[in-house]
Amino acid sequence: MAEKRPVSNVVVLGAGMYRYGIYPEIPFTTMGMQAVQNALKDAGMDWQDVEVGYCSNANLSNAAGHILAWHIGANGMTMTNVENASASGNSAFREAYLAVASGAVDVALAVGVDKLRAYRHIADQNQKEIIKAPTNTAMMRGFAERAHRHMREYGTTVEQMAMVSVKNHYNGSLNPNAHYQKAVTMKEVFQARMIADPLTVLHCCPWDEGAAAVILCAKDIVHKYTSKPCPKVLASACHGNAEIDPLVEMTQITASKAYNMAGIGPRDLNLVEVHDAATIEEILYYEALDLCPMGEGGRLVESGATAINGRIPVNTSGGLLSMGHPIGPTGVGQIAELLWQMRGEAGPRQIIKSPRIGLAHMVGAGGVCFIHILGL
Amino acid sequence: MAEKRPVSNVVVLGAGMYRYGIYPEIPFTTMGMQAVQNALKDAGMDWQDVEVGYCSNANLSNAAGHILAWHIGANGMTMTNVENASASGNSAFREAYLAVASGAVDVALAVGVDKLRAYRHIADQNQKEIIKAPTNTAMMRGFAERAHRHMREYGTTVEQMAMVSVKNHYNGSLNPNAHYQKAVTMKEVFQARMIADPLTVLHCCPWDEGAAAVILCAKDIVHKYTSKPCPKVLASACHGNAEIDPLVEMTQITASKAYNMAGIGPRDLNLVEVHDAATIEEILYYEALDLCPMGEGGRLVESGATAINGRIPVNTSGGLLSMGHPIGPTGVGQIAELLWQMRGEAGPRQIIKSPRIGLAHMVGAGGVCFIHILGL
Repeated sequence: MAEKRPVSNVVVLGAGMYRYGIYPEIPFTTMGMQAVQNALKDAGMDWQDVEVGYCSNANLSNAAGHILAWHIGANGMTMTNVENASASGNSAFREAYLAVASGAVDVALAVGVDKLRAYRHIADQNQKEIIKAPTNTAMMRGFAERAHRHMREYGTTVEQMAMVSVKNHYNGSLNPNAHYQKAVTMKEVFQARMIADPLTVLHCCPWDEGAAAVILCAKDIVHKYTSKPCPKVLASACHGNAEIDPLVEMTQITASKAYNMAGIGPRDLNLVEVHDAATIEEILYYEALDLCPMGEGGRLVESGATAINGRIPVNTSGGLLSMGHPIGPTGVGQIAELLWQMRGEAGPRQIIKSPRIGLAHMVGAGGVCFIHILGL
Repeated sequence: MAEKRPVSNVVVLGAGMYRYGIYPEIPFTTMGMQAVQNALKDAGMDWQDVEVGYCSNANLSNAAGHILAWHIGANGMTMTNVENASASGNSAFREAYLAVASGAVDVALAVGVDKLRAYRHIADQNQKEIIKAPTNTAMMRGFAERAHRHMREYGTTVEQMAMVSVKNHYNGSLNPNAHYQKAVTMKEVFQARMIADPLTVLHCCPWDEGAAAVILCAKDIVHKYTSKPCPKVLASACHGNAEIDPLVEMTQITASKAYNMAGIGPRDLNLVEVHDAATIEEILYYEALDLCPMGEGGRLVESGATAINGRIPVNTSGGLLSMGHPIGPTGVGQIAELLWQMRGEAGPRQIIKSPRIGLAHMVGAGGVCFIHILGL
């Protein structure tokens, strides 16, 4: 069942976003159009050049991707809607990759867009809290249990988890596409509203709206569109199994496939985006991705190794905690961050040591994990 | 924008179905499981061999594919939900094909499953009509207009359209997976309840429930599973454009791509499944697929050429009109019919002249068309 290693003939050549946030008055088409148009501009490409599109969305109606495409204009592109819970965007990216990798098309679009189904959770807006968006409280209770277990088994501390929040909110404060563009202090993390002990709301990702788009093309034609460096897709790995630990074991299996496909190891990575729906998750994924030994995740963040200019920067975008988690777009936005960092276009959050290999990771509630590795 | 012709390294090796119909008391998981298990048996394969799955559904909740997979059991497979309106099943088949064609995996599953959202339309069940399932009346009004236009422009008659219904209901009467396993007479077609003049309910497909599954694998490993003949995927073509005629022009463009990719012409086809949501549609697609000249579609069905043992059999399964149209499964069920006909396993509806090349066609309301060509 090992996935084979296809020839790396697919590159990512452009990305665009609509800043994640809460927009009760903005239709999904407006957000999706802006993300796609930004991605086309970034890619040096016309809408007419796009042959197939995959629209990831988890909260919209059927045909959402087509409605978005109608708004942009008729171009002969075939749109397909894909859904994979939190990993929907990663799934859209993978399908776009497969369409090009198979030789079926030269140019493919992955666009994620989503809206909240209801705004009843936003009553918090009138409060003075830093964080106003809804979070998934039921899911956070599960993460709180994982946090306690990690503390028991490995001596991880709540302070170390809070450091993930401080790091990612700092990174997000430097990202114009992040929902929360505001750094937070350790004290603020501890004093925020409790969601599920020990996780305050600043340990939990918000539930967002927004859009993200990336464009992929066959490596041999990329020169037609851009002279910018374009990372290759070195690995597209996935695994699904609802009967194993969806966090650690699932990620370990998928990472093993991905490293094998890319022909690299975790020490070769220069940046990583992971599914930090809760701070404890980022720590678990440090370990499952083998960025550090099992049980050392808390100490890894404490050491500063995962900060923007640390040994292995994680979630330079701000991650789900600060950039936000609009579901459909999330995994696509991760690819955008990898692209911009590898091109040196990440502005004030740019990693100084020009990163050349990056990894994006998400899990989905259906019992799936996706890992993509890009390399210049 | 012409799609390239990939090396044909993908075969279809098994199919399974859950008979289309209306099942208020049967959950989608039961239907989906039976279709998948039948497909595995047909393929000579274990569930553990399947690496990725695509679940097409248009009326279920998020993660429907994963819930189905949970019921079958944990096997490491990564599931992704896809949606493309009426063409959802064709989209799932295409993604499964691309996953294998790209070299990413060896074995992929496409499974379509759907339920009606509500049963309020089935009030007809207490009436004495032949056809009891709901139909999409709003859409049929559009098809009625197309029927009048074709009659005006080409002299097509309501009798010729009724012949499509009689042919497809006859075919469905021979198909144990068809919703309506009952032949109808010309008189019954004319005397049935009027939906949108000139289309009585027997000119219109029902809105069904059910499931269909097919399994694809890399050609070089098929011998591990089965010694049966397995058709190759010669073409996977698609086109999307909401600003052109979604019926004729969209199908013409997609057919041109598909014939080019497969390296064949319409005269090489031995069987065809088309999107006959209404009888007039089948006539339009005869022409758009170039099975006959423009305007000759009515006369083609009248000649008997598209009957099971005619020159070019169309909708031997019974088509949407008689086999049914459960949306998510429909396009997958078309592939099942092509497979079984090519293997000589179609029972009483088997085409005598062992068919070697078959085509499946659907359009989707998002403004897309999919055409797949299989060949032994």
